[in-house]
Amino acid sequence: MSKDADVIVVGGGPAGIITALTARRYYPDKFITLIKDKETGIIPCGIPYMFHSLQSPGDNKMGTGALDQNDIRVITDEVTTIHRKEKTVETGNFDTMHYEKLVLATGSKPIVPHIPGYDLEGVFPIHKDLGFMQHLVGKVKEAKSVLILGGGFIGVELADEIAGIQGVQVHLIEMLPDLLANSFDAEFGEMAEEKLRNKDVNIMKGSKVTEFVGGEKVTEVKLSDGKSIPVDYVVIGIGALPNTTLAENAGLHLYDGSGIWVDEYMRTDDSDIFAVGDCAAKRDFFTRAKTPVMLASTATAEARIAGANLFKLKVVRENKGTIAIYSTYVDGLVLGSAGLTERSAKKENFEIITGMAEGPDKHPGALPGTHQSMVKLIFSKNSETIMGGQVAGGPAAGEMINIIGAAIQKRASRTEFETMQMATHPYLTAAPTKYPLVIAAQNANHTNS
Amino acid sequence: MSKDADVIVVGGGPAGIITALTARRYYPDKFITLIKDKETGIIPCGIPYMFHSLQSPGDNKMGTGALDQNDIRVITDEVTTIHRKEKTVETGNFDTMHYEKLVLATGSKPIVPHIPGYDLEGVFPIHKDLGFMQHLVGKVKEAKSVLILGGGFIGVELADEIAGIQGVQVHLIEMLPDLLANSFDAEFGEMAEEKLRNKDVNIMKGSKVTEFVGGEKVTEVKLSDGKSIPVDYVVIGIGALPNTTLAENAGLHLYDGSGIWVDEYMRTDDSDIFAVGDCAAKRDFFTRAKTPVMLASTATAEARIAGANLFKLKVVRENKGTIAIYSTYVDGLVLGSAGLTERSAKKENFEIITGMAEGPDKHPGALPGTHQSMVKLIFSKNSETIMGGQVAGGPAAGEMINIIGAAIQKRASRTEFETMQMATHPYLTAAPTKYPLVIAAQNANHTNS
Repeated sequence: MSKDADVIVVGGGPAGIITALTARRYYPDKFITLIKDKETGIIPCGIPYMFHSLQSPGDNKMGTGALDQNDIRVITDEVTTIHRKEKTVETGNFDTMHYEKLVLATGSKPIVPHIPGYDLEGVFPIHKDLGFMQHLVGKVKEAKSVLILGGGFIGVELADEIAGIQGVQVHLIEMLPDLLANSFDAEFGEMAEEKLRNKDVNIMKGSKVTEFVGGEKVTEVKLSDGKSIPVDYVVIGIGALPNTTLAENAGLHLYDGSGIWVDEYMRTDDSDIFAVGDCAAKRDFFTRAKTPVMLASTATAEARIAGANLFKLKVVRENKGTIAIYSTYVDGLVLGSAGLTERSAKKENFEIITGMAEGPDKHPGALPGTHQSMVKLIFSKNSETIMGGQVAGGPAAGEMINIIGAAIQKRASRTEFETMQMATHPYLTAAPTKYPLVIAAQNANHTNS
Repeated sequence: MSKDADVIVVGGGPAGIITALTARRYYPDKFITLIKDKETGIIPCGIPYMFHSLQSPGDNKMGTGALDQNDIRVITDEVTTIHRKEKTVETGNFDTMHYEKLVLATGSKPIVPHIPGYDLEGVFPIHKDLGFMQHLVGKVKEAKSVLILGGGFIGVELADEIAGIQGVQVHLIEMLPDLLANSFDAEFGEMAEEKLRNKDVNIMKGSKVTEFVGGEKVTEVKLSDGKSIPVDYVVIGIGALPNTTLAENAGLHLYDGSGIWVDEYMRTDDSDIFAVGDCAAKRDFFTRAKTPVMLASTATAEARIAGANLFKLKVVRENKGTIAIYSTYVDGLVLGSAGLTERSAKKENFEIITGMAEGPDKHPGALPGTHQSMVKLIFSKNSETIMGGQVAGGPAAGEMINIIGAAIQKRASRTEFETMQMATHPYLTAAPTKYPLVIAAQNANHTNS
């Protein structure tokens, strides 16, 4: 059987899978092939939870059942070259396959800082690979001292999880003065920090690693302040870079030096080749400047746009710009951020007003299971258009941030927040009189307070 | 001291309190008085939880601290007459006070069906009064058999709570073929029903009470199918009617026979008199027809509009129509509804498409604390504008319904749902590949499936 296909998707992560599934819905008669280089994928957002919350790392596998059910051929192989003129791809197994439309979903690779000793045994960047993760989790569970490099989402979640393992001392090193500083203002980062300190995580902010020390294996980490920490293992969570080798070799444009350039419909500069997910460059929703957001949720939103537009463009189904929208969980505390923070808005020179609200997430607050919650909203000063928001609280905060996300995407105004019609219930939300999205909007009112 | 005021608010429920507080923010120099007929108010949505979840009914008191802190004079008295020409109100304590702007927030009164025996001792409509509720809770806690009339929100929440009291058998009678039929489609009502049956609530649907039987006190309830049920107490939760006596006596227009007519800014036909909350008529967001929604959350949204518009209208701060947006909680199951149900949309003759999604509310589903969730979305068939949605699931479903509510208010499209940028996290949401608001929108796609 020929392996030629109408659509070839390169990559088996969320971006690739969802592009293929979306293409199937829009183009039921096309022959679709997905090529992935690993037999077994893992759920990227679930990686931190492979250390402790999940009984076994294997519980975080990402299945391909949906692909099979939707008549998408899955091939485990590595695409090594794209021949754009012939519209073919070549693979590591020496196959050549013709495509009508090609989708690059080649993901990202972890940033490894070239600090002396970075290549010692026991220094682990995070790879999205089941075998690797099983090995790493096994090692960490036997350790007495683990150092995590990077206090962003991944670092904070890893610290929370690994600190839950009996007998492991966790050290968390962050270069910036706050944890989670790229996604939250300081008052929210501090809440995460308090949770980690309560779990005896040794947090060092404004601190850099100058050397990983050891023979074959790392045994000690030296810091910029002269301290050194004895360690069994180091886990690196300082971000990732778009994996664009295949695209670059095919002569596709990158956007400002990294990430594959794509248009509103996720087409590269070759209109028969699309790129989605971490490998594709992102432009910010508000500034259109390049933004380093790399999230599975962003990837799937892009995939749903790309899959629909492969053969015919749908004008309403376009990428209007990437919103940084995240949530995280630290020892029972939920933190969410959408759009710009006060910090990032000021850095971009936006003129803004902000409002805060605090209070219990049930009403009356005497109900069992009540958490304190905090909401911050950021509006443009003149138009009063919503530009960002942050939430902290109990489990429901994870969906509350998505209300703010929807409002950003629909460019809601401050007064629309303040007069929003919302469902409230004693067990589920704050009181309607004190609903925090409303009160934060009210408190951002610079003309009447 | 004269009791004249620039603004007089009649009513101490959420509608009255929030109108007064909003007026204070917009008009810092005005003298504002709130007149309420009960010394101690209670949180209306918390009433069911006074039976069991709260340690004491008194934990559900509604404080007036915010009024005091905002320099709003609170008077406990009853307004008996409005003299519109003189712009004064007369009270039960024989006071006469002048107003510039008057706000009616006189609430609602429970519907009491005039079935034979309705006035027997032991047959209780729900009154929003602390003393009454303390009495009722005390009685119910000693009972062996309690019959609840009405299978809407209040009835279902009461049944769940009272069934939690040791030794009380609960009977729930609903006239319609489903529980929660005014706010949910049958598949969601059934989920509530299953929860109540598991708590041994005796549910009788499609059933009517024909007589309350007893000497002084009710002892038995006769049903339309000939059955009779021995009872100690009956609690009636079949809804409420706007309390418009004061407005009617002042010659203000009602809307189609009940509820005070109001414009987009919550003004009655007398532009110096506003009405907010349960006493004010509501027009549906989609049809502008009268809708019987009576919720504290709706009341507070109206209050925030009224309070801002008292002396000068703000054109963007208008009531664009009432969305029925609710959430409820039955023995750990959260149900939410916003906008039209499939049932109500069809009844109104809207041409619609619907989509469903089901799945775990965490990812991977092997994480501890995972709930199954279900989402249904309803879109206009031609424009694909969102018209309604329902959710069922764990605690986060209570805020998820508010994403749908925000989308309705901003008239989001099906493709905007399907390509929404949302925050996802293993502990907080479904996977980004399976986020139920996205999948339900995708499944509503009639052109490609």
